[in-house]
Amino acid sequence: MKPTEAVRQAYARINAETRQPIWIAKVPEDVAMSQAAALEAHPEAASKPLYGLTFAVKDNIDVAGMPTTAACPAYAYTPDKNAHVVDQLQAAGAILVGKTNMDQFATGLVGTRSPYGACSSVFNQDYISGGSSSGSAVAVALNQVDFSLGTDTAGSGRVPAGFNNLIGLKPTRGLISATGVVPACRTLDCVSIFSRQAATALKVLQAAAKPDPTDFLSRPLVASKGAAWPPTKLRLGIPKASQLEFFGDTEAEKLYRASIERFTKLGATIVEFDFAPFRQAADLLYSGPWVAERLAAIEAFATAHEADMNPVVAKIILGARKYTAVDTYRSIYRLADLRTLTETQWPHMDAMLLPTTGTTFTHAQVAEDPIGRNTQLGYYTNFVNLLDLSALAIPAGFRPNGLPFGVTLIAPAMAEESLTATAQAFLNEPAATPLPNGFVEVAVLGAHLTGMPLNHQLTSRGAYLRETTRTSPEYRFYALANSTPPKPGLEFSPGMNGPGIQW
Amino acid sequence: MKPTEAVRQAYARINAETRQPIWIAKVPEDVAMSQAAALEAHPEAASKPLYGLTFAVKDNIDVAGMPTTAACPAYAYTPDKNAHVVDQLQAAGAILVGKTNMDQFATGLVGTRSPYGACSSVFNQDYISGGSSSGSAVAVALNQVDFSLGTDTAGSGRVPAGFNNLIGLKPTRGLISATGVVPACRTLDCVSIFSRQAATALKVLQAAAKPDPTDFLSRPLVASKGAAWPPTKLRLGIPKASQLEFFGDTEAEKLYRASIERFTKLGATIVEFDFAPFRQAADLLYSGPWVAERLAAIEAFATAHEADMNPVVAKIILGARKYTAVDTYRSIYRLADLRTLTETQWPHMDAMLLPTTGTTFTHAQVAEDPIGRNTQLGYYTNFVNLLDLSALAIPAGFRPNGLPFGVTLIAPAMAEESLTATAQAFLNEPAATPLPNGFVEVAVLGAHLTGMPLNHQLTSRGAYLRETTRTSPEYRFYALANSTPPKPGLEFSPGMNGPGIQW
Repeated sequence: MKPTEAVRQAYARINAETRQPIWIAKVPEDVAMSQAAALEAHPEAASKPLYGLTFAVKDNIDVAGMPTTAACPAYAYTPDKNAHVVDQLQAAGAILVGKTNMDQFATGLVGTRSPYGACSSVFNQDYISGGSSSGSAVAVALNQVDFSLGTDTAGSGRVPAGFNNLIGLKPTRGLISATGVVPACRTLDCVSIFSRQAATALKVLQAAAKPDPTDFLSRPLVASKGAAWPPTKLRLGIPKASQLEFFGDTEAEKLYRASIERFTKLGATIVEFDFAPFRQAADLLYSGPWVAERLAAIEAFATAHEADMNPVVAKIILGARKYTAVDTYRSIYRLADLRTLTETQWPHMDAMLLPTTGTTFTHAQVAEDPIGRNTQLGYYTNFVNLLDLSALAIPAGFRPNGLPFGVTLIAPAMAEESLTATAQAFLNEPAATPLPNGFVEVAVLGAHLTGMPLNHQLTSRGAYLRETTRTSPEYRFYALANSTPPKPGLEFSPGMNGPGIQW
Repeated sequence: MKPTEAVRQAYARINAETRQPIWIAKVPEDVAMSQAAALEAHPEAASKPLYGLTFAVKDNIDVAGMPTTAACPAYAYTPDKNAHVVDQLQAAGAILVGKTNMDQFATGLVGTRSPYGACSSVFNQDYISGGSSSGSAVAVALNQVDFSLGTDTAGSGRVPAGFNNLIGLKPTRGLISATGVVPACRTLDCVSIFSRQAATALKVLQAAAKPDPTDFLSRPLVASKGAAWPPTKLRLGIPKASQLEFFGDTEAEKLYRASIERFTKLGATIVEFDFAPFRQAADLLYSGPWVAERLAAIEAFATAHEADMNPVVAKIILGARKYTAVDTYRSIYRLADLRTLTETQWPHMDAMLLPTTGTTFTHAQVAEDPIGRNTQLGYYTNFVNLLDLSALAIPAGFRPNGLPFGVTLIAPAMAEESLTATAQAFLNEPAATPLPNGFVEVAVLGAHLTGMPLNHQLTSRGAYLRETTRTSPEYRFYALANSTPPKPGLEFSPGMNGPGIQW
């Protein structure tokens, strides 16, 4: 697709959507369009790795000339310069369309702690979108943009991926510069990537990851330590049964079990590991002095403007005043001891496979207990950055009520490439290879899908599965009446903004 | 020398010394002697790397069945187990003779903050020994033991080396386990080594360095990153002239300049570097929340027993109560930024050459201003552990008043082997090779030394310099009367406990 056409479609979808408070600020369409036109005017630009891809950034990431609010209008400032990562993406040919809603100061996993309104799961308006990178996830799930940036300190780049059936890549700390990003916990923050395909997330990471001497966490992207994992030899870690927690959500548990089975069918070996020290590390994040990093980031503002903050966020961040330096060092020691304990487990597994969250909540459930529900959402995510791990949230099926379920692959630092390859095998995503001569692309659904009765009509003619994909949001899906067995039907509905149809 | 003879001589020297409060507790001589006898009874033990070497440990290092005081009698406890490092040294054939005096809770660089009395430089009783590892340094300088362990957080393993003309090896954090060592700053503490020769310190390190999963800093000893530094190609970093500080001690400055010249003659290239970010890191150590690590280590004790503590130490450690978690993270960020700044300088130099201290002080001068003088002693040492560097303090000549001067080589982590090789070249220490067939060892002094008029009588006969060495403490040194040019004389004085004669 031409960049100008990509931009046109992006704004058409953005403008057609009215229910979700996705955007805090949009790039004017003519500005984005002129960037797209400039790309088209230079044929050599077509070789840029992110040529013509549209993207959004969470509103704690600086874009020159646009206010950075971190979802707190009283805090807003207008930077002169782009965040380091925005420069990298634009240089790679990507086109920014706007800045997205979020839990204020990236403090939350719910997506409801924003004066700009609460996003919802694209699959059900009653359910939360997850956060804190709520708008970035929803924009990608609704196909408004090709990818987006979130940030992830405790799970903010993974939980909304799980609730919106997306890829959520939480790269190793320091791979993507945090220069020009409002800090949450500076020692833990990671810029994260949402996309609909794992390959896209890896491509974005490779373009975004550039060492930045002004970010003390910065480290270069190195060849993946686990690049040698063939999915058929993957050793996949699963917590002991007693350590799994679904908060009563039996459908989530079934889907988690099904994911394990799917990996087993791909040839993975399942290894049980002790989740306890990982959980103990997770508990340190909010019950210990790390929350003081959030206060350190905005102390002068928070002290002067408590009334202008979301009350839940203010309570959490200002609560950090009680922690002393001694508390901090004790927690640093405790974490270091736990890290040593966890490191004895990695030699036995390549990655661990966890639910992205144990369950999901409605907006009403979160309102009843904003901090308690939020804590439950972090059960499988909070330890990852503290222990310097890499993580990739991936879609893993749907509950009977239509809500998606996600799992997350977690591995030691610098495993992004291996995690992506593993996810591609699980999702049956094609490697991005050109179409061989003499082949044409055919989209199928229903009985021609892999494993269905008419699939042989394709395979017997030499066809191979190139991609499992999703329609644009402008399709509706039906069970055709009076057909035996019941047959599926797709209908093109211009102007509709559905989630897209994916098998 | 047989181990039993080594032990006999060690105790004879220890028992003959009456002026210095070196020992907080001694291993009973018969216990040490029976260990020595056990080594002799097993001929295969002779191949152990530290066979029959006597050693002392600072009294913040656990020895099973002996009280650990950290120079605070009210704090004393008697551990069941040896510190991890003590086990390694004994397994390597070394024989422990006792536990040494120190600045209380390893808080000080002076050696005067102890209820057991203040050690002095072995070269002048009016001058301080340096600390905090005071007794460990003095015991080695007086040849009471072959080597000793100190600890080093801010320079405690280097400053007393400088004041007693010793080698002081401050290894990379985590190479020697700190399990069983009373913490000062747990994220920074290093067990350090004093010896009279650089080769001994490296040999002790190699025996002591064993990964310990119970110490979160533990890392394995790896091949030296800079093993390829030939002294003749060494790039040696020197601070800009304006960044050097000798506190008015012009003799120290002259000796520092002479050291630079000596390295230049060995073929080193001198590179000027910006010392400012290293100094800024140093300033964080005591003016920032790291001191809260000292409080975290002993908070319950210090709160209940302030009156039982050295008042200067109590003031410093309890002063940490004022620091918050926010202060701590701000300092962690500041240090991380400074580390990034310093890292841009290492590609231009293999090691930096600094004075170990800019000057030295009398006991009276320290008493006048205990904290101010102490701070001055840390000018060239405080940043090293914060920035995860390795360091080796080495002797570098004497002032006209007879006090020694020392320099310290500092390099990135894991450079111990290269630092030792560089020091050996500077000190003209031999590599420990066996004597070739047909050669005999001859000790010379005076006109037969390298560069002196009669040296040719040796070299013309095929002699080569094997070692520059030091006599036992039982020698006196004279200028012979009525000789032209004046000639030197050595006299054996049984029972004398001098520093030994070294040219």
